[in-house]
Amino acid sequence: MTSETVSIELDERGYEIRIGPGLLEQTSSYAGLAKARNALIVTNEVVAPLYLERLKASLQPLHAKVDAVILPDGEQHKDWASLNAIIDKLLSSASDRKTLLYALGGGVIGDMTGFAAAIYMRGVPFVQVPTTLLAQVDSSVGGKTAINHPLGKNMIGAFYQPLRVIADLDTIDTLPAREVAAGLAEIIKYGPIADAAFLDWIETNLDALLARDKTALAYAVRRSCEIKAWVVGQDERESGLRAILNFGHTFGHAIEAGLGYGQWLHGEAVGCGMVMAADLSERLGLAAPGLLDRLSRLIERAGLPVKAPYMPLARWLELMRVDKKAEGGAIRFVLIEGLGKAGMHAAPDERVASVIAAHSLPQ
Amino acid sequence: MTSETVSIELDERGYEIRIGPGLLEQTSSYAGLAKARNALIVTNEVVAPLYLERLKASLQPLHAKVDAVILPDGEQHKDWASLNAIIDKLLSSASDRKTLLYALGGGVIGDMTGFAAAIYMRGVPFVQVPTTLLAQVDSSVGGKTAINHPLGKNMIGAFYQPLRVIADLDTIDTLPAREVAAGLAEIIKYGPIADAAFLDWIETNLDALLARDKTALAYAVRRSCEIKAWVVGQDERESGLRAILNFGHTFGHAIEAGLGYGQWLHGEAVGCGMVMAADLSERLGLAAPGLLDRLSRLIERAGLPVKAPYMPLARWLELMRVDKKAEGGAIRFVLIEGLGKAGMHAAPDERVASVIAAHSLPQ
Repeated sequence: MTSETVSIELDERGYEIRIGPGLLEQTSSYAGLAKARNALIVTNEVVAPLYLERLKASLQPLHAKVDAVILPDGEQHKDWASLNAIIDKLLSSASDRKTLLYALGGGVIGDMTGFAAAIYMRGVPFVQVPTTLLAQVDSSVGGKTAINHPLGKNMIGAFYQPLRVIADLDTIDTLPAREVAAGLAEIIKYGPIADAAFLDWIETNLDALLARDKTALAYAVRRSCEIKAWVVGQDERESGLRAILNFGHTFGHAIEAGLGYGQWLHGEAVGCGMVMAADLSERLGLAAPGLLDRLSRLIERAGLPVKAPYMPLARWLELMRVDKKAEGGAIRFVLIEGLGKAGMHAAPDERVASVIAAHSLPQ
Repeated sequence: MTSETVSIELDERGYEIRIGPGLLEQTSSYAGLAKARNALIVTNEVVAPLYLERLKASLQPLHAKVDAVILPDGEQHKDWASLNAIIDKLLSSASDRKTLLYALGGGVIGDMTGFAAAIYMRGVPFVQVPTTLLAQVDSSVGGKTAINHPLGKNMIGAFYQPLRVIADLDTIDTLPAREVAAGLAEIIKYGPIADAAFLDWIETNLDALLARDKTALAYAVRRSCEIKAWVVGQDERESGLRAILNFGHTFGHAIEAGLGYGQWLHGEAVGCGMVMAADLSERLGLAAPGLLDRLSRLIERAGLPVKAPYMPLARWLELMRVDKKAEGGAIRFVLIEGLGKAGMHAAPDERVASVIAAHSLPQ
């Protein structure tokens, strides 16, 4: 099986996403980028034993010096302390403006490495080597980088693009089943918001995806990246259309923040959040009845939670009001306006309350 | 005396620098910008008693809510802790993506507020209200925002442009003489690197500038902003030409970092650094003899130090190697190639050592 490439076109410059098995350990995957004497691999304590030495070996021919910084694993470490660890490592190894950063890991590593690259000396180049399904379909496109704050997820960050993304499908083999499911949540998302035919395809091929079939994965990753690129390409700075990528995320972020980051995986929270947003879409008469049932079934088949943990209503509303999509204190939701089409909508608190009640576990 | 305006043209969008007396307390100075329900003024404990209430009063008609965060004063507080204080204030007051930040203070406040604006929710708008001469001529143009790291100045930051700059010349009246001199250092800089006639003008008008004559100040601030805008306009991301703005800064940053930030003012270090860089330019045969004498005299007349503090040579070299202009470990200097023209040059360590010995105080 050969690799596939998605080309991301941007105003300033574009980059490639290469998708396929075995890419991580081929030097050619990383060739032809900006020349850099020093490279720094940023990874975590779970990924490092699996892939760090292999990536180092691939990069050895390209850089005079390849350093690594190994961070603690988990969304709860997507914070100032980890960001500082990257910056300190860059400074203590006298890295210059051409030093190339490699993000080796999931979305947390990608987001933090990208943000560190964005702000170190006001910007150094970086390459994404996503090792989770979620990161391959979600973090590879869009240039969003960030860290969390105790008061909100991804509250501190920048828009910053990688030089290239290397999505090695073999890395999916070492993922826990729970993380494969979390990745499937973001893949499923692209159906209802943008491509009804892709939703059909996922329903047909879900078992192959769960079995980590490389051909099915390659198509799902490629199609997800294409859809995301199409959306982002029309709205790089998230002023309008791009917000539809946050389908399920307003409820989802509240779950993550309410439980404390790291309890639920991001994809799990988004999966459950999509169920809630689908219900809200139906209740407001935007989507035809049936959407909620269809999405709930698929999300459950994927092994994702469809019931949110219990939180008091006031806590839900407070958490959703600090969402970055909120404006002047009003919560705005991405809702489905018909299969394959989404838009931003405000919703009366009592409708939101009904949705929360219908899809939460009892106290 | 009426106010003057310099228009900064950028690829994406431009902005205005308004220069004149009495601007800070006129609501019209801030009118016509992006609508924002919430505003946050970032200032420090020295500036707040002088201008915070006046700025709040000017902004009252434009925003439903005007908050303020008052930081400790000084370059040594241009750090993570202060940045966090701004971010925490934004989050705890449930600021959204349209919240407008106002930087009320000198370069430190401007750099930190701009950086906070760049990274809060991946970017919110901000306005500069510089209250020091240095900030009016230096931080108003170029979009450089940053904080310091113990291992290097401005090591963490972003390129991010304000919506407008309000340079109220009346604020210069409340500045200590030492800070006026520090501002003059950056004004003097624009002569040798870009405009020999401006250097003549400064020599003729230095006494008026030291006496804080508004007409002389208005011309000096406007011409400095124009020259900086011309340089930056050709090179927004500092890949080449823009580096000439760092004339005197490689030696200067080493002085600041070596002594610990806050001991010397940035402008004082740049003043002394320009003397050293002028000498290096002559020793390498780039500038005709006479430059060193002429600049030293002017810098001394402005009330700036022309002798660096004692540091061992190895410490100088180590500090200059982490400068952002360094590449692959080689120090690069901005040197004068003839009055009004500058460029980047490497220099043999022994020449650099001679310059340091000639312009440092004894141990």
